[in-house]
Amino acid sequence: MTTEGQIDFFFKPESIALIGASPNPKKLSFTILENLLKMGFQGKIYPINPGYQEIRGLKCYPAPDEIKDRIDIAIFAVPASTVLEILNGHVENIKGAIIVSSGFRETGPEGKEMEIRLKEILEKKGIRAMGPNCLGIYDTVSKVDTFFISSDKVERPVRDGVSVLTQSGSFAAMIMDEMANEGAGISRVVSYGNKVDVDESDCLEFLAGDEATKAVALYIESVGNGRRFLATASECVQKKPVVALKVGKREPGAKAASSHTGAISGRYEAYEAAFRKAGVIEVESYEELKDACKVLNRYPLVRGNRILIITDGGGIGISIADACEEAGLKVPDLSKEVMEKLEKKLPAFASVRNPVDLTGNVKDEHYIDALQEAFGEEYDLAIVSLLWGPPLLSKEVAEKIKAFAIHCEKPVLICSPGGRFSREVASAFTAIGMPVFFTPDSAVRAALVLCGGKK
Amino acid sequence: MTTEGQIDFFFKPESIALIGASPNPKKLSFTILENLLKMGFQGKIYPINPGYQEIRGLKCYPAPDEIKDRIDIAIFAVPASTVLEILNGHVENIKGAIIVSSGFRETGPEGKEMEIRLKEILEKKGIRAMGPNCLGIYDTVSKVDTFFISSDKVERPVRDGVSVLTQSGSFAAMIMDEMANEGAGISRVVSYGNKVDVDESDCLEFLAGDEATKAVALYIESVGNGRRFLATASECVQKKPVVALKVGKREPGAKAASSHTGAISGRYEAYEAAFRKAGVIEVESYEELKDACKVLNRYPLVRGNRILIITDGGGIGISIADACEEAGLKVPDLSKEVMEKLEKKLPAFASVRNPVDLTGNVKDEHYIDALQEAFGEEYDLAIVSLLWGPPLLSKEVAEKIKAFAIHCEKPVLICSPGGRFSREVASAFTAIGMPVFFTPDSAVRAALVLCGGKK
Repeated sequence: MTTEGQIDFFFKPESIALIGASPNPKKLSFTILENLLKMGFQGKIYPINPGYQEIRGLKCYPAPDEIKDRIDIAIFAVPASTVLEILNGHVENIKGAIIVSSGFRETGPEGKEMEIRLKEILEKKGIRAMGPNCLGIYDTVSKVDTFFISSDKVERPVRDGVSVLTQSGSFAAMIMDEMANEGAGISRVVSYGNKVDVDESDCLEFLAGDEATKAVALYIESVGNGRRFLATASECVQKKPVVALKVGKREPGAKAASSHTGAISGRYEAYEAAFRKAGVIEVESYEELKDACKVLNRYPLVRGNRILIITDGGGIGISIADACEEAGLKVPDLSKEVMEKLEKKLPAFASVRNPVDLTGNVKDEHYIDALQEAFGEEYDLAIVSLLWGPPLLSKEVAEKIKAFAIHCEKPVLICSPGGRFSREVASAFTAIGMPVFFTPDSAVRAALVLCGGKK
Repeated sequence: MTTEGQIDFFFKPESIALIGASPNPKKLSFTILENLLKMGFQGKIYPINPGYQEIRGLKCYPAPDEIKDRIDIAIFAVPASTVLEILNGHVENIKGAIIVSSGFRETGPEGKEMEIRLKEILEKKGIRAMGPNCLGIYDTVSKVDTFFISSDKVERPVRDGVSVLTQSGSFAAMIMDEMANEGAGISRVVSYGNKVDVDESDCLEFLAGDEATKAVALYIESVGNGRRFLATASECVQKKPVVALKVGKREPGAKAASSHTGAISGRYEAYEAAFRKAGVIEVESYEELKDACKVLNRYPLVRGNRILIITDGGGIGISIADACEEAGLKVPDLSKEVMEKLEKKLPAFASVRNPVDLTGNVKDEHYIDALQEAFGEEYDLAIVSLLWGPPLLSKEVAEKIKAFAIHCEKPVLICSPGGRFSREVASAFTAIGMPVFFTPDSAVRAALVLCGGKK
């Protein structure tokens, strides 16, 4: 049996027990049960709490071993000391645990002691565990949602291809919420907190072979076993792109990371080297990781780094070109042949260069003309930026660009800067599965990731 | 008479003529008149078009000289050749022109020829002019809006303190739209396009003495008269902060800038040196300029660069700390004394360091406790980051933080990451005049600007 086999039940559970289940809306466990039900999990759900006979129409059990069934995931939503107590009891039927409770290593010496005991018990009983001090799993494939935050507060993204691994629960919530807000989806999210057992390497091993996952995004404060991480990350990169954000790079971020999930961040340079060796694309910021997730949902990496820019706003085109050059991407000019062809097709005042500026006289079809004539062998990726001011530009341009993009082997990234109206019309793109970037900078961050990241 | 006196009528006009006015909604001039009326301009508005007696209830004149009044601003919304024709005629009563028409230098040799003639005529007649190939003025002080883009498509920000100067009209539209969308306001926006006459230096001179303008943000493709720019920018910096984004830094952005407004960008290094000499804070990207505008609406620059971070999400705190360090800002730890005080006041598992992590057990008052105890002499600026998941955190925290911020001499920046819900509750801050930043990166970009930009 491979290690992968050891944790895959977390991602295709048939039964979930919720230890500490409660009908009290002020309890975290209340929200967890609500989210599980809302998500439409198709397996069995067992609330566990000796104080209740039934919660939300589900039979409630006094203890795990009263359930005459194997429990794939037991969510522990009880105080730290109670976690230990229960695990010390009869729990022979639990395969995996998600311990959302805090009060362990992240709180100081006493908590650290408890976490050491937790680890011993888990090993003795052969229970695999995520957490403690985590949110657990949000999974659009298996329909599992163990997050103790209501979907009113943190929106849940729809299903798509990128899976996210993170030590930080707040990071998971932030990126999910913002991606949902921007019309982007996700595959699986794992927040594993203090990593008493399951860590990024375990998850990477599973995700490498996971057909539902097209790419992996990592938020890393620290890695415990560097050698294993290097091996599993390298193997995963063979199959799909892996991007990583390392935080706690220097003092004092490093110090904060240590207190946050009780880990030691280690020297940043070691991480940098490991990423490079494994072929992991390192991103520099939260925003870049989010942009990476959005773009990797739809597009694979490209080989070169030559960017074609098409816009209807001169200033935006220049800003994109500048940001590309700044990031080390190339913005080669059009060939003479292409220029001549375009001059015949585009509006009178159009600028037939790279960036191609279709100006305020643009019509929908000019975007397609420009893509068809200019997006040839000389370019690896196109950024198409649309300002919606021009009177003859319509929402229908989305379908037209999609029709082109579908038959194009190379990525076409959409940039639609601005506010309310711009986001509304941009939904014409997200509705048909094309990610939209709302600033020039954001589109370039996404392009950079597809080109393999900063060199 | 100073040069300043020469263009101030653009910012306090008593009469505006719209040349090319039309009741046809497909014409740009239709939208301009609509926007002027919507904005509530209190002076006289004279539509000019020989084909109409009246437009939207306003008497329509066949030509400028039929108006027996001085025209402070004549907006030209007619083809390039017609602009020249009209200016060659009887226009003795026009003080200033805003020529929104394109078809001049940006289109090639013929257009360039026309622009040279335009310049000659303007000088001969003593008419000051903005444009051509521009959007003109959006002014929340004088209630002027000459933009030919409907407010349905590009939202208009409310009144606030930052004025924006830009060659690019699309840039003006983008930043206005997004700022309005994020609840941020603006003072005056000038899009001067090809700069046949009025340029950044003229505007800087006016804005330096303008009481309604607290700070100036510049989008620069090129500067014609470097010496004058250096002088006017230096003088303006003595009175209020000036931030600048230079685009077209390198080939090919530089080439695109040249075609866009017909200007030559010049070597970037010269701009860099001029900014430094004048004390202009240079920003690196569109996003940074937008963040600068938001933060300068409310806060003056600070002297140091020591940042206090308070958060309820560990991962966010670390991301902010990392981004600070990356940008060259300092995140010094709390003093022992402060730590001890905070330990007594904050939730049990709180991390009493910098970043202060109040955790998911946070209550509203903990933010105030942390600010009161920790935001002492050791720090120049605080970033307060709120995740809205914690059950005991309420919207009322906004009023409480504001009450603290008002009596605090140093800036308190709010970071509220996430999507729909987060933006909704964040409006509690924007409603009381505190800018909100929606990602860790964005909050740090704003902090960097207040600390004087990248060193």
